[in-house]
Amino acid sequence: MEQKTLPTQKLPKLPKLPTKTLPTWIAVDWGTSNLRVWALDDGANILATAESQLGMNAIAADPNLGFESVLISLIGGWLDNNARDIPVVICGMAGAKQGWCEAPYCEVPAAPTDLAFGAVHPTVSDPRILVSILPGLCQRGDADVMRGEETQLVGFMAQNPDFAGWVCLPGTHSKWARLSGGQITAFRTYMSGEVFALLSKNSILRHSVDDAWDDVAFADAVRGALAQPSGFLHNLFTVRAGALVATDGAVVPPGASVLSGAVIGAEIADVLSLLRAGDEIALIGTGKLASLYQAALAVHGHKATPMDSAAITLAGLARAHSVVIG
Amino acid sequence: MEQKTLPTQKLPKLPKLPTKTLPTWIAVDWGTSNLRVWALDDGANILATAESQLGMNAIAADPNLGFESVLISLIGGWLDNNARDIPVVICGMAGAKQGWCEAPYCEVPAAPTDLAFGAVHPTVSDPRILVSILPGLCQRGDADVMRGEETQLVGFMAQNPDFAGWVCLPGTHSKWARLSGGQITAFRTYMSGEVFALLSKNSILRHSVDDAWDDVAFADAVRGALAQPSGFLHNLFTVRAGALVATDGAVVPPGASVLSGAVIGAEIADVLSLLRAGDEIALIGTGKLASLYQAALAVHGHKATPMDSAAITLAGLARAHSVVIG
Repeated sequence: MEQKTLPTQKLPKLPKLPTKTLPTWIAVDWGTSNLRVWALDDGANILATAESQLGMNAIAADPNLGFESVLISLIGGWLDNNARDIPVVICGMAGAKQGWCEAPYCEVPAAPTDLAFGAVHPTVSDPRILVSILPGLCQRGDADVMRGEETQLVGFMAQNPDFAGWVCLPGTHSKWARLSGGQITAFRTYMSGEVFALLSKNSILRHSVDDAWDDVAFADAVRGALAQPSGFLHNLFTVRAGALVATDGAVVPPGASVLSGAVIGAEIADVLSLLRAGDEIALIGTGKLASLYQAALAVHGHKATPMDSAAITLAGLARAHSVVIG
Repeated sequence: MEQKTLPTQKLPKLPKLPTKTLPTWIAVDWGTSNLRVWALDDGANILATAESQLGMNAIAADPNLGFESVLISLIGGWLDNNARDIPVVICGMAGAKQGWCEAPYCEVPAAPTDLAFGAVHPTVSDPRILVSILPGLCQRGDADVMRGEETQLVGFMAQNPDFAGWVCLPGTHSKWARLSGGQITAFRTYMSGEVFALLSKNSILRHSVDDAWDDVAFADAVRGALAQPSGFLHNLFTVRAGALVATDGAVVPPGASVLSGAVIGAEIADVLSLLRAGDEIALIGTGKLASLYQAALAVHGHKATPMDSAAITLAGLARAHSVVIG
């Protein structure tokens, strides 16, 4: 199990904190394939942090693993024997039906307090901790679900209380949520990341996709997606046809750029069709994927600087902690 | 190698025809994974027909197979030793770069005669046959290609000379072509069949797709695709989310119907956005897939009865034969 300390802060040596820095509470982001924990003091300063690959799927696949024991193996060193009922606030897949303890979905429109009050509290055998698992969010009209991203949205709202518009969280299944009046009013999941992966690895387009990249070809494909927003299933094929019809000596745009632009461009074209006057756009994410969304949004004149998702998640967990634990 | 005769006609026994019925010419549809041949008399009556799995891919994968030998193994019994230069007219992947002999693409707009005159004639060692391989069709502006479907379009035009509008050829890569004034003026390939297969077998949606089917759910998804034509990557996710947000006891629409409706509906929504006043719609294909396209078109008030693609292909080859051979 990998343990990390944040490089910018002076931290006590892991795994055990000196008694005087017993955490006030512990924040946990428990995803499908990852688990991240933070020890925090009463001023919301990070005392320590740790990560593991033991996401929900790994635990579900191994009958010798349980959620509580995995959690304790990661945070146990932060708790001395005098600790009692240290609040542990968890978001993500730990609250799924196949997770630790199901936290039924909240329904949109939902405020941060609605989500916090939806927390469930599984019985634990370790007396040092008191566990709250936050719910996910669902939408019934245009059926949709999220688990984990809602806590990022809560963190974003804590930092941007007057924001009105759409927040983008890129990923295997990208989420776009509309925030307005201190509530999450609607959201849309896009299977963009998974569709890109399938097409680039398992479809006929795999012959056209390699490591070559061109920013201009990406931007052109993003522009093409907005020019004919219904044309996604056709635009895909131009990744292959572009090379087949190129005249001898012509430069063929790299397939990865065209495919990525077609997929991300289609997602953004759909969101742009839903924008209302004055709507802002924000982007939560890190790394190459978030940069591509930033570039695609810039093609259409929208400036959105990617925000660090881990920090936003922690801000959301802190907001939930302040509501649930007070 | 499977040999079939058309059930509605009295045919001489295969593989050898009596001398008096030596074919006037032979028609060949050589696809990626199938090969179909017809023996015809000078009145365009079918004397015999045969099929094989030795499409372009099988031949490319086996160094012991060659296009001419595969063809002769299938049609040799129809030719006696007195036969000389019997015309063999071939459409499809035999003309691809990786095929028998490359027949460079014709470019749209193209008339049936343009396609026929684009035929190439590979040198053959068997003196009984004279081979013509028809070209595919390409479009440079909005890059696209087809090989084989153009011959179906020629067959359709021979039977419907005044048709103006779009012809749909459903498949792994569906093709829609616009016909006007006796020409193929534009066309669009949609990766619908391949995208459906990948999503239903290899994506997270595989858990939601089984043999269950509901026509109403299919029609609803088709309608949803037109209601928000840019929403494809989001609509996909509702296949999964629909089940997750369903209240206890609610009937969840079968995933296969919703996914199929979302994919075919997205393709049709795009084509409908390109219709001009008075444009007709025609549908070439057989079996379940063509029926789904027919049903999806009917949702939007377009009546299109599927036409048998083999008969249309043969009509297109006959048209080419009449131009090339006279």
